[in-house]
Amino acid sequence: MFVIPPIPSIEDPALTARLQHLIDHKTKPLGALGRLEVLMLRIGQILGTDAPALHAPQMLVCAADHGLAARGVSAYPSDVTWQMVENFLAGGAAVSVLARQHGLQLTVADCGVAREIAVREAAPGAPRLVSCRIAAGTQDASSGPAMSAAQCRQALANGMAIVRGLPGNVLLLGEMGIGNTSVASLLLARLADVALDDCVGAGTGLDAAGIARKRAVLQQALDANAAATGPLAALAALGGFEVATLTGAVLQAASERRVIVVDGFITSAAVLVAARLAPQVLERCVFAHRSGERGHACMLDALQAEPLLDMGLRLGEGSGAALAWPLLDSACRVLREMASFESAGVAGPGG
Amino acid sequence: MFVIPPIPSIEDPALTARLQHLIDHKTKPLGALGRLEVLMLRIGQILGTDAPALHAPQMLVCAADHGLAARGVSAYPSDVTWQMVENFLAGGAAVSVLARQHGLQLTVADCGVAREIAVREAAPGAPRLVSCRIAAGTQDASSGPAMSAAQCRQALANGMAIVRGLPGNVLLLGEMGIGNTSVASLLLARLADVALDDCVGAGTGLDAAGIARKRAVLQQALDANAAATGPLAALAALGGFEVATLTGAVLQAASERRVIVVDGFITSAAVLVAARLAPQVLERCVFAHRSGERGHACMLDALQAEPLLDMGLRLGEGSGAALAWPLLDSACRVLREMASFESAGVAGPGG
Repeated sequence: MFVIPPIPSIEDPALTARLQHLIDHKTKPLGALGRLEVLMLRIGQILGTDAPALHAPQMLVCAADHGLAARGVSAYPSDVTWQMVENFLAGGAAVSVLARQHGLQLTVADCGVAREIAVREAAPGAPRLVSCRIAAGTQDASSGPAMSAAQCRQALANGMAIVRGLPGNVLLLGEMGIGNTSVASLLLARLADVALDDCVGAGTGLDAAGIARKRAVLQQALDANAAATGPLAALAALGGFEVATLTGAVLQAASERRVIVVDGFITSAAVLVAARLAPQVLERCVFAHRSGERGHACMLDALQAEPLLDMGLRLGEGSGAALAWPLLDSACRVLREMASFESAGVAGPGG
Repeated sequence: MFVIPPIPSIEDPALTARLQHLIDHKTKPLGALGRLEVLMLRIGQILGTDAPALHAPQMLVCAADHGLAARGVSAYPSDVTWQMVENFLAGGAAVSVLARQHGLQLTVADCGVAREIAVREAAPGAPRLVSCRIAAGTQDASSGPAMSAAQCRQALANGMAIVRGLPGNVLLLGEMGIGNTSVASLLLARLADVALDDCVGAGTGLDAAGIARKRAVLQQALDANAAATGPLAALAALGGFEVATLTGAVLQAASERRVIVVDGFITSAAVLVAARLAPQVLERCVFAHRSGERGHACMLDALQAEPLLDMGLRLGEGSGAALAWPLLDSACRVLREMASFESAGVAGPGG
């Protein structure tokens, strides 16, 4: 069952100094690679080396359904969850296309989709399905806890087990679940003490009246679960099976010092819960992008995170993480392969 | 010699409607891929197809020296220009590393580096040098025109000839030349009527006093070339050989309907000149990033350009264009390979 794994700080002043020295002596003006230099430093620190290399990158997309969806919090019906999982596996979704482009192994986890997804053989390198269903969707959080404490701990343990079974040193996070921007909004409001109005957005495309309805339902959910204030209690009461599974995945990846590439609003909510359980998790995270979904900017502030991209993406699935992936690879390659002033025989400032 | 090639508008309402329909029926909420959708539309329009594919991408880095550099407008000595060209060719510069990562063919053009670069054999796929030297650097623009009208036209013709000789349907722009942020600042001030203060920045790393000195020298250059107001006259009076060569390259690439990926401040200045000569050039451009160099934000405004990345890069070389490159490839793949609601059997909004 679920036990928070040890996640010690990776702080290493000697390594940090060595990395900064290397970066500063590359053949470029000081700081001229901007945020890419911050990324070099971060990845070097996570992997504990001044010559970092990312290998066997894993895209984990966790999917589940939500009792809240019956309350009309989404523009789409819950059936879209299983239909999109089939689309991921068939290679037709955005994340499928991007994973194929970049050689990311795509694993889709059925964490509790309303209609069970059949496990089937996958060709090597093709998207594969892992079944770790807790139930056919959560309960309606607007009238009580979305899941039991035992279900929540099982989902966390499932996420940890999935990551233990994956190769590589970098984990990209993705998700699918009609209704799950509501879950992320609730967790943000509860765990980061952000006003609900600032947490609620259009999701897959609600209009203003739809957002008002969604907001009212989410206020009911907060009221119905007023006692659930700690991270685990809030996750069980307000969360989703995919968010809890992702939270476990984040904790496990952090304990193994994998680089964790966070996608948008929902995966950030999983990181928020994980960080409330073990703050050092954040040392291992790279935030791929600032989503167009209202609430994500507040979420990033709460996590003190500076994302790489800001392209108005609001699809989820891990699509933003996949789009940002080449930048992580670039950071490592530049650190390993770019010449220094000395090695290239280039004059420094002032000649 | 130099003649502006025909660059008709690529506007095609039927194709645009077809592209928008395809994008809107992909398995995602309407608009959920944000700026990537704008990019899909743009590339489809440039290549004139609803199934765009980029092939044989070419990174063209134009290098030259500047008479202005003797006036102390840069933190680095002019010798760094030839040293960095050698670094590009040896594979040790940032743009070399990034071009290798992404399979971009790197061509370095010696457009007038103070110390001539020896042309040598290059292995297939390795960086190669093209020599199209106008002179060993421009004249000092603070006391008269940087180049003659004939030199300017020759550099423009050189840029066109280089692109004619390159395969593929996408051209990424890069540059190297100690002193060339000064050139870009001057062209921005003159051709876009922006106050000089807003055009002048730290370049490779001047301090506040250095920037003040640089500003004073650039004011002298504007005054010494007050009559050079048209795009060709301004390019000759205030420009650099690499900027003029890039301007020719942009015009040729635009006339061939190649996708043009613009890097930072200096390559944007070449696009500014090209757009003043032939406004339809801008229809063919994708702006890779907003540079950390002061002046680039104004430049992008003058070009009504929305860049893809905003990472505080200020290295030049084409490094920002190379970092953004995978996003262009993603846009094409998503357009070609992502399923529609119908083909994937996914329900739309409302079920």
